[in-house]
Amino acid sequence: MPQDTTPASLTATAAARKIRDGELTSVELVQSCLDRIEEIEDTIGAWTHLDKEYALAQATAAHEWRRSGESLGPLHGVPVGIKDIFDTRDMPTENGTVLHAGRQPENDCTVVALLRQAGAVIIGKTVTTELAVMHPGKTTNPHDPSRTPGGSSSGSAAAVASYMVPLATGSQTNGSMIRPASFCGIYGYKPTHGLISRHGVLLQSRFLDQIGVFSRSLEDAALIAQVLIAHDPNDPDTRPHAPPQLVKTITEDPPVPPRLAFVATPAWDEHADADSKEAFPELLEHLGENVESIDLPPPFERVYDWLKTIMRADQADNYRREYEHGKDKLSPIMVDMIEQGQKVLAMDYNQTAATRVGLNRLLSEIFDEYDAIITPASTGQAPVGLDTTGNPIFATPWTFCGVPAITLPLLQGFDGMPIGVQLVGPRGDDARLLRTARWLVEAAKE
Amino acid sequence: MPQDTTPASLTATAAARKIRDGELTSVELVQSCLDRIEEIEDTIGAWTHLDKEYALAQATAAHEWRRSGESLGPLHGVPVGIKDIFDTRDMPTENGTVLHAGRQPENDCTVVALLRQAGAVIIGKTVTTELAVMHPGKTTNPHDPSRTPGGSSSGSAAAVASYMVPLATGSQTNGSMIRPASFCGIYGYKPTHGLISRHGVLLQSRFLDQIGVFSRSLEDAALIAQVLIAHDPNDPDTRPHAPPQLVKTITEDPPVPPRLAFVATPAWDEHADADSKEAFPELLEHLGENVESIDLPPPFERVYDWLKTIMRADQADNYRREYEHGKDKLSPIMVDMIEQGQKVLAMDYNQTAATRVGLNRLLSEIFDEYDAIITPASTGQAPVGLDTTGNPIFATPWTFCGVPAITLPLLQGFDGMPIGVQLVGPRGDDARLLRTARWLVEAAKE
Repeated sequence: MPQDTTPASLTATAAARKIRDGELTSVELVQSCLDRIEEIEDTIGAWTHLDKEYALAQATAAHEWRRSGESLGPLHGVPVGIKDIFDTRDMPTENGTVLHAGRQPENDCTVVALLRQAGAVIIGKTVTTELAVMHPGKTTNPHDPSRTPGGSSSGSAAAVASYMVPLATGSQTNGSMIRPASFCGIYGYKPTHGLISRHGVLLQSRFLDQIGVFSRSLEDAALIAQVLIAHDPNDPDTRPHAPPQLVKTITEDPPVPPRLAFVATPAWDEHADADSKEAFPELLEHLGENVESIDLPPPFERVYDWLKTIMRADQADNYRREYEHGKDKLSPIMVDMIEQGQKVLAMDYNQTAATRVGLNRLLSEIFDEYDAIITPASTGQAPVGLDTTGNPIFATPWTFCGVPAITLPLLQGFDGMPIGVQLVGPRGDDARLLRTARWLVEAAKE
Repeated sequence: MPQDTTPASLTATAAARKIRDGELTSVELVQSCLDRIEEIEDTIGAWTHLDKEYALAQATAAHEWRRSGESLGPLHGVPVGIKDIFDTRDMPTENGTVLHAGRQPENDCTVVALLRQAGAVIIGKTVTTELAVMHPGKTTNPHDPSRTPGGSSSGSAAAVASYMVPLATGSQTNGSMIRPASFCGIYGYKPTHGLISRHGVLLQSRFLDQIGVFSRSLEDAALIAQVLIAHDPNDPDTRPHAPPQLVKTITEDPPVPPRLAFVATPAWDEHADADSKEAFPELLEHLGENVESIDLPPPFERVYDWLKTIMRADQADNYRREYEHGKDKLSPIMVDMIEQGQKVLAMDYNQTAATRVGLNRLLSEIFDEYDAIITPASTGQAPVGLDTTGNPIFATPWTFCGVPAITLPLLQGFDGMPIGVQLVGPRGDDARLLRTARWLVEAAKE
């Protein structure tokens, strides 16, 4: 992925600063991103809706606003790609299924409303897998078009990785943020469950759905997440807490070098690729005494089945209308999942859901000793082929527990493809997780 | 119910003040309560565990503590009855089933711990129906031993109503606080779902279970509830908010006379007794322009089925062990409920659970116009017979929505039996609800 000196290659943090300082206009930045899109979109296929005129009109409005001397939001003039399951009042939101073709929401989801409030240009809608599950869209991996970009946030990850846009939103119900970030070689940050409102975003599973962000720098992830973390009475899982101070904390050095726990997870032996099995031990060796390998307590062996129970039942519930009225237009894999979910009993569902508290208690004991868990973000390199988006298994335990997680693009596979490292922190302690992540990125480079 | 001048006839507020001022000792108060219990327990049957020596030992300790000059909690030296589904480290907790006979918890539930911290004497454990559901215990109605006291918090309501103890704890999964308070002619206050921790209390339904308190005065309800309302990380539905200022607000006059909405509910025609159908219109007439009759929006017609779906499924989940290992020792009605619950599908459960947000939104529109809803607390007078605890139907909509509700002993039936009035407020606005309740109690007397 060649970097150049065009504005499209800037990080969001740098671009926002230049716009603020008058060294760059939002119009120049958005035009540069549109040029980049024009150049490679035919190969990448990241977008499902992109109106260049409208994007430039927003940029022009941002420019006018700045010239008026009004105060500027932290993302003023910066373009953001929006996964096509986030409702936008001015663009269709089709949720990756022909059943919702042409669907035009009346209102912005909370995330998009907050982005606009922060001054962002909503540049367009990015490709999602069908209903944010498994069946892939058209997107290819920016590092190798014969490979999957991962999913379900396929277009957002690919657009950021290919310098089409510095920031994009995604969502994760199992591994839909962490895995595509790993496959595409970028940062993918999924804050603690309940920090970012899901109001106006396609509901797959209240228990599991979590919003996240893609970026090409850690500072950028903090910058956009800080804008999005806000209590929203319309999402009953968000809480009126003081938000974590991500942008501030990420600039601070840890008071002492962090202690990391390497967790291979019960999926390692069977599912980690040869690339991962070579790259991770090297990284651990490099980090030396700052990291210790530990095992997850035995209950975590069952978390893969537990997530499936919850996810299938919630799909059957929330995609009931699509199944009843358009089963023939759903992919066979989606139909199969829904039909599995229809059979889940409430008593089993609730017993499964109740395990989360206990699992988090077990994780707390780990986090009493370690600042963060370091663990694979994916099976390894993005697999060749575009008929699947890869296996989300390395994200499963952390998604189920609702803990914050971030993919850091630190490793490379045999074929030169990126492999992400996942860093996981305790629930609600997102600021420290990002601070530890910054330390790790620097330590890995040393 | 004859009132006399013994300490047992004092309200908790008065008793606590006298103890503080040195006009009464906790030992005298507890002895007076024990005398009263001795006198009438054979008829009432309110207690499942009562160790008089141990109660007096606690009272003696409270007296010693006061003599030492240490600071006193708001319930210092005041005896409280505890429904036998609240874990106590020093008394058995048998949950109203022979399956748990002799069960001795290792720890206090959060509620009991908070009561001890406030200086209360944990006098004994009160009778609950089987697993806090329908099958009655031994308790009779203090106003007429041929009638039910209501349930499931049967012993707590009867003990307070018969002046055995000024305060008792209860719980409500459908109508288990509001109805027995109505049948026994006392105050029964169930705060907003999530204000009082259920940690260490028999879990029947996380969605529905709510803790409450019984008392013979409104001030007493505020006094004990204030002690119990606290964030508890062990109950994930409690939240770290500032607690409502019940004790303070209840002494204040409303800035303007409250506006009340009388809601007969969809159950009125079929289920309200002739007594209620005569008494409520009289009360409304008496209140005049301060009250208007309104209907609940149509979705509330379905709330009775919705509560059943949630409650049955949760019973099947939470009483799974009792069913699997002791089905033959459960009542037929309990077995039937569990077996209904075993068939509930997760997708139906979750769709049902999700209706609560919409229902609360509809209630909010009512509470935009009215300070509180006034509505029946029960079908009417306590029915004759001890084989059921009566119909919880008039509590169902409010329990399902998790809004705060309080029974006020304002009416009388043809047979001279008490009939409660239920006052319901918006979620979280418990302080205003109690202030409005005080206004209503005074207005009803004028």
